Amino acid sequence: MENQIFELSYALDTFYFLVCGALVMWMAAGFAMLEAGLVRSKNTTEILTKNVALFAIACTMYMVVGYSIMYPSLGASLLAGITGDGVTGAEEAATYAPSADFFFQVVFVATAMSIVSGAVAERMKLWSFLIFAVVMTGFIYPMEGNWTWGGDPVFGMYTLGDLGFSDFAGSGIVHMAGAAAALAGVLLLGARKGKYRADGSVVAIPGANLPMATLGTFILWMGWFGFNGGSVLATASVENANAVAVVFMNTNAAACGGLVAALLTARMLFGKADLTMALNGALAGLVAITAEPSTPTPLMATLFGAVGGVLVVFSIITLDKLKIDDPVGAISVHGVVGLLGLLLVPVTNDGSSFSGQLIGAATIFGWVFVTSFIAFFAIKAVMGIRVTEEEEYEGVDLSECGLEAYPEFVSAK
Amino acid sequence: MENQIFELSYALDTFYFLVCGALVMWMAAGFAMLEAGLVRSKNTTEILTKNVALFAIACTMYMVVGYSIMYPSLGASLLAGITGDGVTGAEEAATYAPSADFFFQVVFVATAMSIVSGAVAERMKLWSFLIFAVVMTGFIYPMEGNWTWGGDPVFGMYTLGDLGFSDFAGSGIVHMAGAAAALAGVLLLGARKGKYRADGSVVAIPGANLPMATLGTFILWMGWFGFNGGSVLATASVENANAVAVVFMNTNAAACGGLVAALLTARMLFGKADLTMALNGALAGLVAITAEPSTPTPLMATLFGAVGGVLVVFSIITLDKLKIDDPVGAISVHGVVGLLGLLLVPVTNDGSSFSGQLIGAATIFGWVFVTSFIAFFAIKAVMGIRVTEEEEYEGVDLSECGLEAYPEFVSAK
Amino acid sequence: MENQIFELSYALDTFYFLVCGALVMWMAAGFAMLEAGLVRSKNTTEILTKNVALFAIACTMYMVVGYSIMYPSLGASLLAGITGDGVTGAEEAATYAPSADFFFQVVFVATAMSIVSGAVAERMKLWSFLIFAVVMTGFIYPMEGNWTWGGDPVFGMYTLGDLGFSDFAGSGIVHMAGAAAALAGVLLLGARKGKYRADGSVVAIPGANLPMATLGTFILWMGWFGFNGGSVLATASVENANAVAVVFMNTNAAACGGLVAALLTARMLFGKADLTMALNGALAGLVAITAEPSTPTPLMATLFGAVGGVLVVFSIITLDKLKIDDPVGAISVHGVVGLLGLLLVPVTNDGSSFSGQLIGAATIFGWVFVTSFIAFFAIKAVMGIRVTEEEEYEGVDLSECGLEAYPEFVSAK
Repeated sequence: MENQIFELSYALDTFYFLVCGALVMWMAAGFAMLEAGLVRSKNTTEILTKNVALFAIACTMYMVVGYSIMYPSLGASLLAGITGDGVTGAEEAATYAPSADFFFQVVFVATAMSIVSGAVAERMKLWSFLIFAVVMTGFIYPMEGNWTWGGDPVFGMYTLGDLGFSDFAGSGIVHMAGAAAALAGVLLLGARKGKYRADGSVVAIPGANLPMATLGTFILWMGWFGFNGGSVLATASVENANAVAVVFMNTNAAACGGLVAALLTARMLFGKADLTMALNGALAGLVAITAEPSTPTPLMATLFGAVGGVLVVFSIITLDKLKIDDPVGAISVHGVVGLLGLLLVPVTNDGSSFSGQLIGAATIFGWVFVTSFIAFFAIKAVMGIRVTEEEEYEGVDLSECGLEAYPEFVSAK
Repeated sequence: MENQIFELSYALDTFYFLVCGALVMWMAAGFAMLEAGLVRSKNTTEILTKNVALFAIACTMYMVVGYSIMYPSLGASLLAGITGDGVTGAEEAATYAPSADFFFQVVFVATAMSIVSGAVAERMKLWSFLIFAVVMTGFIYPMEGNWTWGGDPVFGMYTLGDLGFSDFAGSGIVHMAGAAAALAGVLLLGARKGKYRADGSVVAIPGANLPMATLGTFILWMGWFGFNGGSVLATASVENANAVAVVFMNTNAAACGGLVAALLTARMLFGKADLTMALNGALAGLVAITAEPSTPTPLMATLFGAVGGVLVVFSIITLDKLKIDDPVGAISVHGVVGLLGLLLVPVTNDGSSFSGQLIGAATIFGWVFVTSFIAFFAIKAVMGIRVTEEEEYEGVDLSECGLEAYPEFVSAK
Repeated sequence: MENQIFELSYALDTFYFLVCGALVMWMAAGFAMLEAGLVRSKNTTEILTKNVALFAIACTMYMVVGYSIMYPSLGASLLAGITGDGVTGAEEAATYAPSADFFFQVVFVATAMSIVSGAVAERMKLWSFLIFAVVMTGFIYPMEGNWTWGGDPVFGMYTLGDLGFSDFAGSGIVHMAGAAAALAGVLLLGARKGKYRADGSVVAIPGANLPMATLGTFILWMGWFGFNGGSVLATASVENANAVAVVFMNTNAAACGGLVAALLTARMLFGKADLTMALNGALAGLVAITAEPSTPTPLMATLFGAVGGVLVVFSIITLDKLKIDDPVGAISVHGVVGLLGLLLVPVTNDGSSFSGQLIGAATIFGWVFVTSFIAFFAIKAVMGIRVTEEEEYEGVDLSECGLEAYPEFVSAK
């Protein structure tokens, strides 16, 4: 009977991982819709293609090499296969299905990569982007993920965790990491033609389909319950069930706080209820709580989210002033607010320290930014990373994909 | 070992609540897409903004005050925080995570409020609407929810339940309540310009994006499994698991019955397969079964849904004759069919009575309609509730949000 | 305490079925969005109407007659009702809620039927299609489903399973069956006007809304976790939990393999990153793994998916050369790749044989194709199956539904 109880616990934890993993996979659709809604119609097919392809590449690369880099103790050779019985070479008996763990982890990689596609949208070559995706998901992300979640040392004998760094579900390891890679790409690519005038002023380039962008945000919001909720890593006890429930509640609260705060901030700055800022505010709230959703009260989670929501508006404005052209605001949402999330952890979690958070943030940012810069630079040297001016003017849908996203609708542009 | 079994039961019930709550949260996306698809393109950004903002406001207000009004025994002060260990002041030991209960309840509030946004679309001021959302979700809804689900007396010493009123998942408490508030708003606002001609005839104003409206309906349909299925409130026993399964099966059956019935009714009346009527028929079937999805057979559930599907078509036609202008049919779907759902309960549930259902329906409708009317009236007096004629003509997207939903597509209007 | 453990196991298996069933129901939205995105705007409302209506009809017909044809041992009369206590006449005590089983099965029927709507799009009469849906979901599908999953003999005393046929989640029973019916319809209908020139060359007819088609693919991908994962039929033990986890992992891997392979194949053939081929590649990967997702390693699953992804591209090209006009590629994705999936089973599953797979495939295809052909033929004789040339030219939205999908957007066509 003891054994039957173990079996039930194993089954419940496994099912919980799988449901959370399916929700995180669903975030890939969220990024795709968000980005498709926020670019111009002439670049929509291409951004959709990048999004579906990067997800497939991320899952494949992580299976082939990434997972064994990030969690070396779970088995040296994934090509031999993760089966229900466990990964070859795993050191401990599992308390849930090893393949459920892999399924949950693999969809995180795609999230990190999805952040990049939005920032480099409307001018980066499709195949160059996909080659970067291979490097990012097979090597860059698994390396830095290993230093905290994989439990391996990065500074001689210390892991980031040993240094007081804590990142519950990945404000830094996933979101800021994605933004760091995005920033490297944006700096090498330069801004879209026509985004900044000679006098330095900014030209607004509105997204072509706001219902689609709103849908994408709702999808991400829903998927985030799996992203944060699954990061408790077990649910089959009173303690773990309580933790998962608190994480769901706080994740939702932070998104709400971020949305309202960004909406009000935009109202004060621009005089209007700016929908795209509200959407970015919700996402900022989600990123802000991701580093520690289990210890705040729901009121604190709402406030943390609200700080993220205010910050993201000013960050987007500031990046535009710096002529860092990020069509969907990904660097602000995931990078700037990802850092905020890391720095908020010590407010409610005694197991972390501000210095530890800063060391961790700097290490992750430094690693991802530098390696991504090198990768983008190498790809640029070999095959180029930016489409031609004419392709950019005509839209990359036709040159890269040979298909318009909305071939029947007459465009005003 | 006894304790381990309790822990597993606690964990399973908690996870069930969280999954159902995530599905109900997803309904917010459904309402947003449905309404964005059924309004004109010039009012689309604004209705999206209202939908995302009302969800955030609903969750925040319910946390700050609503939950403690509706369930006073669960703790006087939510600001003190709902934690995994329970809400301060809770009287009984929990059998599932208290924050999972809160998470499930909080997304219901948003559903009630989402009903209002569709009915007042295309002419109500955005900020006035959001202020109403504060009142509705922080006070009006929690009060009437308390009288049945919170177990507190409304008529001297009787709760609505004591009087034979039964509303399993909220045909009345959530849906008809939302519709009552919507009706109050619509009566104070008046019809959209151009909806009714001087001779009293009705001008059809088709929605701008029917794929989006269809997607919204599917999202609501899926989310409803959580809405009704979660309302069993526990699943970790044979009896409860059976009840949850019956609820899922019947919820689906009723939606199907409503869809087919509305499609055939519209075919007979108009000679065409009217998609928007089919969608409203599916929603009507869902609303009709919500008051009691656990006792009918699936065939009865299908028939109950079908009655809702027929009723909603005639209700939409009738409201238009009465010049009650509801752009998405929300008052018919959630109000008229919500009442139908309440009146169908005694057919299969011996624990309720027609008189109890009528008393409950009248009490809820009266409370929500009167208090909403007062709230709308006060907001109208202070800051106005209707946009100017010019703003209405140009579309509220530009005046309220400063952003078009589809800025690149040339409009025929 | 023994009994409490049984109750928990019963509850967990039931909840798992319900979650998986909700995901499969969600696939109906996926098909609707995919098809709405891939047809022309003038035929969009009609394809949406077909999709929502076929789902409702499928669920109703399967409840009234289909389920008792497919699983006769579960009770002769479903009209009497499936309740939580079990189906009248069931032979064994249930280990999960009987209505959860029904809920899971019922949404499969709709999947088979959804495949047909895409292939006959843009020219088949709406009401004729819905009458075919009644026959397909109430009779044709339940009959062939019975021969494998229902455990009843088809060849004298043998079931298909007895002959070495194995189809885990329905590459053949659901997907190839749907494609067989679709092929019968397409052959009787003929190609769309203007699809093939007099000289035999093919005119590309691009879909009107690629973000919608991409969303549909992501929805199907997500829903497929329920489709395949739920087909393990139980999860509340270590063995079953492992199997479900492997199925989730492999389902995802196969979709990724199919997507990348189709993208690269299209790149080589056409020189462009063809988004619609990538989407069909992902779906092909999913169909290919569906016959046996539990025995391959994830690397093999990726490769099986990739074979499907290559095959689907060549199949779509070949069918066009044969002038078999399938607007969304459904016959290739579900039929040709469905057969591939069946033939791949013996590679990793010792319990099946190539001969058994061929006999099963031929039996299912033969049965569904012939009966569907007869049904379409009878419907054609009685009421016609194809719209008039003028209706086809003007678009079926106005003639069949009286509503345009995008009434405000100026069309270039």
